[in-house]
Amino acid sequence: METIKIGILGLGTVGSGVIRILRDHAEKISNITGRRLEVKTVVVHNLKKKRSVDLTGINLTDNADDVLCDDEIQMVVEVMGTVNTAKEYIERALKAGKHVITANKDLIATHGPELISLAKEHGCDLCYEASVAGGIPILRTIVNSFAADRIIEVRGIVNGTTNYIMTQMNKNGASYEDALESAQELGFAEADPTNDVDGIDAAYKMIILTQFAFGKDVTMDQVKVKGIRGIQKADIAEAKRLGYVIKLLGIAKLVNGHIDVSVGPVLVPQTQPLAAIQNENNAVVVTGSAVGETMFYGPGAGELPTANSVLSDITSVTKNIVMGTTGFSFNDYTNELELADDSEVVYPYYLSLQVLDKPGQMLKLTEIMTEYDASFRLITQTQMNDRFARVSMVTHEMSESQLNHIVEKLNELEEISVLAAYKVLPEK
Amino acid sequence: METIKIGILGLGTVGSGVIRILRDHAEKISNITGRRLEVKTVVVHNLKKKRSVDLTGINLTDNADDVLCDDEIQMVVEVMGTVNTAKEYIERALKAGKHVITANKDLIATHGPELISLAKEHGCDLCYEASVAGGIPILRTIVNSFAADRIIEVRGIVNGTTNYIMTQMNKNGASYEDALESAQELGFAEADPTNDVDGIDAAYKMIILTQFAFGKDVTMDQVKVKGIRGIQKADIAEAKRLGYVIKLLGIAKLVNGHIDVSVGPVLVPQTQPLAAIQNENNAVVVTGSAVGETMFYGPGAGELPTANSVLSDITSVTKNIVMGTTGFSFNDYTNELELADDSEVVYPYYLSLQVLDKPGQMLKLTEIMTEYDASFRLITQTQMNDRFARVSMVTHEMSESQLNHIVEKLNELEEISVLAAYKVLPEK
Repeated sequence: METIKIGILGLGTVGSGVIRILRDHAEKISNITGRRLEVKTVVVHNLKKKRSVDLTGINLTDNADDVLCDDEIQMVVEVMGTVNTAKEYIERALKAGKHVITANKDLIATHGPELISLAKEHGCDLCYEASVAGGIPILRTIVNSFAADRIIEVRGIVNGTTNYIMTQMNKNGASYEDALESAQELGFAEADPTNDVDGIDAAYKMIILTQFAFGKDVTMDQVKVKGIRGIQKADIAEAKRLGYVIKLLGIAKLVNGHIDVSVGPVLVPQTQPLAAIQNENNAVVVTGSAVGETMFYGPGAGELPTANSVLSDITSVTKNIVMGTTGFSFNDYTNELELADDSEVVYPYYLSLQVLDKPGQMLKLTEIMTEYDASFRLITQTQMNDRFARVSMVTHEMSESQLNHIVEKLNELEEISVLAAYKVLPEK
Repeated sequence: METIKIGILGLGTVGSGVIRILRDHAEKISNITGRRLEVKTVVVHNLKKKRSVDLTGINLTDNADDVLCDDEIQMVVEVMGTVNTAKEYIERALKAGKHVITANKDLIATHGPELISLAKEHGCDLCYEASVAGGIPILRTIVNSFAADRIIEVRGIVNGTTNYIMTQMNKNGASYEDALESAQELGFAEADPTNDVDGIDAAYKMIILTQFAFGKDVTMDQVKVKGIRGIQKADIAEAKRLGYVIKLLGIAKLVNGHIDVSVGPVLVPQTQPLAAIQNENNAVVVTGSAVGETMFYGPGAGELPTANSVLSDITSVTKNIVMGTTGFSFNDYTNELELADDSEVVYPYYLSLQVLDKPGQMLKLTEIMTEYDASFRLITQTQMNDRFARVSMVTHEMSESQLNHIVEKLNELEEISVLAAYKVLPEK
């Protein structure tokens, strides 16, 4: 049986997982692909660091040239992270005719299109299943199984760290600060949690999902991103009372034939499957005009789940090598969609306001709502402290531009400040 | 752009859905595959029947030769159902070098291996994504995304009719008879519901899933099949009280490296995602040794969902035609597993007994349990009527052979009869 030699850039959790699975499942992989897959060389930053995975028979080096300039290596797995160096290495690998597999969502979301055309130019495969939703095989499923359907919406929990935090808050009544600390202790959140809690990581993943589901490249500045930083226990409790769970959702959807991509806290009805996704798990709901609503659920991160997605790329590239069909894009769907305007994107909203506790405030609020043609479906006022009341409401559907006007006007008032403004998913 | 011509055998709901999607999504399909797909001829039983789908430009015929002997037709979609005639037509199509797509689970579960080798012999593709779990792209996902993982268990709700009936019983307290009648009125169940309610349809699907997940061909007589016919309201209520929902599950799992495949009513903990799958929806939980637990959820049947799975096969075969890579098996994993012995397969069980209401019965019961080294975790006795009591219990783990012995012994007693014996899924 012929052997295909692989070089790995990086030996963190995912890199170690790839080596482990390739070794443990070698027989099945050969059974399916007809090739023996061998990790020849691994490039690491620190040669002296102790490794948890058995590296017998593998060259360990700190010189990337040992992979990039080795003609025997046909496939390069980039799991080192960071953007600039990874990009340089991937470009060099592709130019040297090597197939590349990466789990680097930041890189693909930022420089995907140019790397994809470089791969094509050199007849190489470039795959990145592990860049979105860890162990859930969502990208390849969209490519293979939704090719003939027209996807209307992709929405999902695509960041495990924030879903862990929201689960602690929703289920155990933890404060944001305590939930974050617990996530950090368990290794689900980094010391600087910005990328996760401000929704940036989720936004990168939504950029990639949008490319696959809608054939459209959007850039970071075209995604409306809100994070979960400082989300209030009072809002979690109020949402619960109303039958909702607050989750950080990414939503990419068609609105009047235009595309809208956002990340932010959303009130999800407790009856919907997404509301039940706990802890660091991820789930993606894909709605097709033919198939209707489907959901794909699994671990969002972790050594072996993410490594398994890398492996699905490795076996897929191997099959392409065997059949002589390398050089086709991972995703072959392109569609020149325009971005939806804020006036087109409508949702019910949950608003939480701090209001000075004196007569006439409710009148001001309703006047502003009326001015922008908005109305509420539910409203509750509770005492916050001696001076302020908390007013929570769920509005009828309104557009993002209506919402923005209303929030701006309310914040101009000395007596009212807007504490939260979250989308509400409609019941079905 | 080149055109690929398609012949369709059968114009029921799925056939009509295929024509509809091919027409409505023609542009996207061409964008992705680089080919125009055209339905040239449709074979029907009754030419005079009124059709709900627009057939402009399509030849309608009642002679299968018009498809099978037409050299212009490269791809045949079999959605006529039945086994014998469908098998004959598919064999003729493959021998004529035509690629075949079928949604016929009975046929694939019964004659899959011989059709697959016939396809290979003639360099043709044979795909059948729609044969399992309607709109859920589960087969292709197992092939593509679990290739390098070692699947430990596949369990799922793979029959929409019985899940609709169980939902009515679990949620609305309906009796089995009323729930079945309501399913029949809504068109979810046929006038003769045997295939669905006795678990036969689910068993066919588990045979195909076992082939994909474990590489092993099992036959119908190797699957342990129980249906839901006559399931009792009292057991539904008792399960609910204990924190479970009764669902008809198919389970294929590795036990000590041996394979066990079964279909039957199972008590699913209310906290598990499968417990929440409602009505005619399907869901398949795939557990891999690397990836852990993943779940795929979607509509289990219906015109467009099932047609969309057929379309995923059509686009996949089209890509293979374009790349010159037809003739590879849909599933390329084979593994010579042995069947697990009844003594290896252990579960906790739910038992429901009718017991003559006189002293000494509980002693007899516990004596028999003890004789076979089994014990219970929970037990409840309630009054059934003047003469009989109902005893419900959840046992500790025991093997199927222990269970079979105990049930046999209990049924030998005049005073006790076993009303139900269902597996219980452990909490995680």
